[in-house]
Amino acid sequence: MRVVVVGGTGTIGRSIVAELSKRHEVVIAARSGGAYRVDITSAASIQAFYREIQGFDALVCAAGDAYLGDFDGMTEEDVAVGVQGKLLGQVRLVLLGRRFLREGGSFTLTSGFLLRDPIPGASNFSMVNGAIEGFVRAAAFELHRSARVNAVSPGLAEESVAVFGPRNPGRLPVPMSTIAAAYVRSVEGFQTGQVLLAE
Amino acid sequence: MRVVVVGGTGTIGRSIVAELSKRHEVVIAARSGGAYRVDITSAASIQAFYREIQGFDALVCAAGDAYLGDFDGMTEEDVAVGVQGKLLGQVRLVLLGRRFLREGGSFTLTSGFLLRDPIPGASNFSMVNGAIEGFVRAAAFELHRSARVNAVSPGLAEESVAVFGPRNPGRLPVPMSTIAAAYVRSVEGFQTGQVLLAE
Repeated sequence: MRVVVVGGTGTIGRSIVAELSKRHEVVIAARSGGAYRVDITSAASIQAFYREIQGFDALVCAAGDAYLGDFDGMTEEDVAVGVQGKLLGQVRLVLLGRRFLREGGSFTLTSGFLLRDPIPGASNFSMVNGAIEGFVRAAAFELHRSARVNAVSPGLAEESVAVFGPRNPGRLPVPMSTIAAAYVRSVEGFQTGQVLLAE
Repeated sequence: MRVVVVGGTGTIGRSIVAELSKRHEVVIAARSGGAYRVDITSAASIQAFYREIQGFDALVCAAGDAYLGDFDGMTEEDVAVGVQGKLLGQVRLVLLGRRFLREGGSFTLTSGFLLRDPIPGASNFSMVNGAIEGFVRAAAFELHRSARVNAVSPGLAEESVAVFGPRNPGRLPVPMSTIAAAYVRSVEGFQTGQVLLAE
């Protein structure tokens, strides 16, 4: 398969690339670095990216920002970080990419544990993750040509404990191999409309 | 209590107003009609509305559009209907309204059954409902002065069967009294961060 990994240079993205590269041609895309540049907050950037790479069998998105910070002072502009990034960024990849997706292909988006286990300052993540899961559950029934769409909900990766562990007391870290495996199950499996938990 | 009902002139809103008016002072707000005008797609409109009404003990939102229509041709502009309307419209009401909310007050937002039981053409609703539920679950822990925030997820109201029944084959309609009662439980109860199902 030809598999596109958007955010393929990030912590989770790199592990997905490493795993999928064993069996597939992997196209690595990212905002900076990677073989291809794409900014998912921009429809024009995504359009240009798809025109450049053309057909593919699967797309995994492990990219998309959201706001993490003070709730009391949180403004609409802060909320927009997640709406334009992790939410609409991923939805744009599906809406604009579906005509480049080959027969029987799949999209795999990223949700996250903060929907089910919120922490201070991260309501933008909880909101956006809920939106991604709702979108995936509905859109799965509407894609054509046997296309599939799932979300993976990663937990706190062991590699991220140094940075995000203090914000998540008592959260057991998940080995990166477990997280990457969930993306593999979506890409190589047959399920659609599912949220694959790797929390 | 002084209770604001945004969308108080709509099908669900009218029943909430009727029920809450038995015991409370109800401020009816809507895009058109109602004692007060507010357009929740506009932060400026919401700001002006709050400055006009000043303090309140509870706000219920039964307003907010989303896109219902063809999925194949769904564009980012279509998705924005729900993002700017039912999602950010309701989030804006909380972010901008929290300083007008009296001690121990509450916000009650509206999700909907299409998150758990999607139908063709309504992925924008599924997405937005998921976002509202994620936001409520996280934001509940961050509000101050004993403030609460919940979402009610209404089913297909009996009064809406004529219009939306054909899109929802096999869905048993819910009496409006059941839906209004869920809003009452949020406003008069003690729960927070919950999704109250009236599906």
